[in-house]
Amino acid sequence: MRVRRKAWIPERIQELSHLVVTNPTEYKGQWRRYFKNDYPLHVEVGTGKGRFITTLADQNRQVNFIGVEYVLDVIYYAALRAADLESAHIALLCVDVSEILDVFAANEINRLYINFCDPWPKTRHAKRRLTHREFLARYKEILARGGEIHFKTDNEQLFEFSLNEFAGDRDFQLKNIALDLHGSNPKNNVMTEYEEKFSNMGMKIYRFEAMYMP
Amino acid sequence: MRVRRKAWIPERIQELSHLVVTNPTEYKGQWRRYFKNDYPLHVEVGTGKGRFITTLADQNRQVNFIGVEYVLDVIYYAALRAADLESAHIALLCVDVSEILDVFAANEINRLYINFCDPWPKTRHAKRRLTHREFLARYKEILARGGEIHFKTDNEQLFEFSLNEFAGDRDFQLKNIALDLHGSNPKNNVMTEYEEKFSNMGMKIYRFEAMYMP
Repeated sequence: MRVRRKAWIPERIQELSHLVVTNPTEYKGQWRRYFKNDYPLHVEVGTGKGRFITTLADQNRQVNFIGVEYVLDVIYYAALRAADLESAHIALLCVDVSEILDVFAANEINRLYINFCDPWPKTRHAKRRLTHREFLARYKEILARGGEIHFKTDNEQLFEFSLNEFAGDRDFQLKNIALDLHGSNPKNNVMTEYEEKFSNMGMKIYRFEAMYMP
Repeated sequence: MRVRRKAWIPERIQELSHLVVTNPTEYKGQWRRYFKNDYPLHVEVGTGKGRFITTLADQNRQVNFIGVEYVLDVIYYAALRAADLESAHIALLCVDVSEILDVFAANEINRLYINFCDPWPKTRHAKRRLTHREFLARYKEILARGGEIHFKTDNEQLFEFSLNEFAGDRDFQLKNIALDLHGSNPKNNVMTEYEEKFSNMGMKIYRFEAMYMP
């Protein structure tokens, strides 16, 4: 993905510094201290413009939410949304998912959302898929026991790949597998921007949850 | 399913009694004695007219195959196919799958094939689906450790249901999950009559394997 730079964004981000954490490695293992509470921590990787995580943060005031997104221009829009929320617990980090172990410590995350990540369709790029076993190994280092990964995609090949990666790891227990999420009238499904657009175009949305039970 | 009766079939079946076992409960736990060898035992439930299992039996001479089918009229055609094979190891049983524990003993089955079983789409009939957890409990009583269940269907809802039933049982490890079997050019896939017909019509075929690892 080409990262377009809008020159004015870094400056504006400074004004939202209470939402965009610029020194996230300093809070590794300390996110409850950052939020000043003992609530569980739910993290979304690839937060984009933040509709999904800000909606959840609005609905769930007793959960701490962190959105991880490596495109700074996009985080700005997520921060604007977050700024509209009162008394929600949300932070945004400009971090590449491959560096997630630098900002979270063992047992720190109770739920990890992976929504509509890049499918990297070529086999030689399989390791870049966020559900490749090498990423699962990283997630296991920071998930609490009983924590969950919630995964959604509109890409059948990525979904099949991801099912097999999780099924092949006995520390994860798959559940609530859906091959046509919107066809089954899901309760409480919060849509991402991308999901709404593609679902409205008639594309199927696939979803599963995987519980970490080492 | 309505079981059509052809009056002449019971008599003809007698002529194929070396292939259609009429007293299968007597061989419970004794199938290797029946086949007079020590080969692994692969069982197909819902064998129909037998194309799948007779093809496998022809290709794999060091495996014992048993086809289970409760419609006698259909077994007759499977027996005719089996009779064409020389020196294959195959037997056919006219047994309802719900009575499978009457004809197999603990650890006796190394692989169980479930191909295109009735999807029973209504929720109130879920218990009749051959991948319902109550059936899985029966299969576990007769599968050897490390044995596998291979499942194929063209029905998306049944596939989703089945994935969730197996994923919810920690004694099974899912693998080789395929959301579009023929789209991925599978090696060594043996098609059933039904599979060829519906695949040719452009229907997707779903498949997974589940290893029994209690």
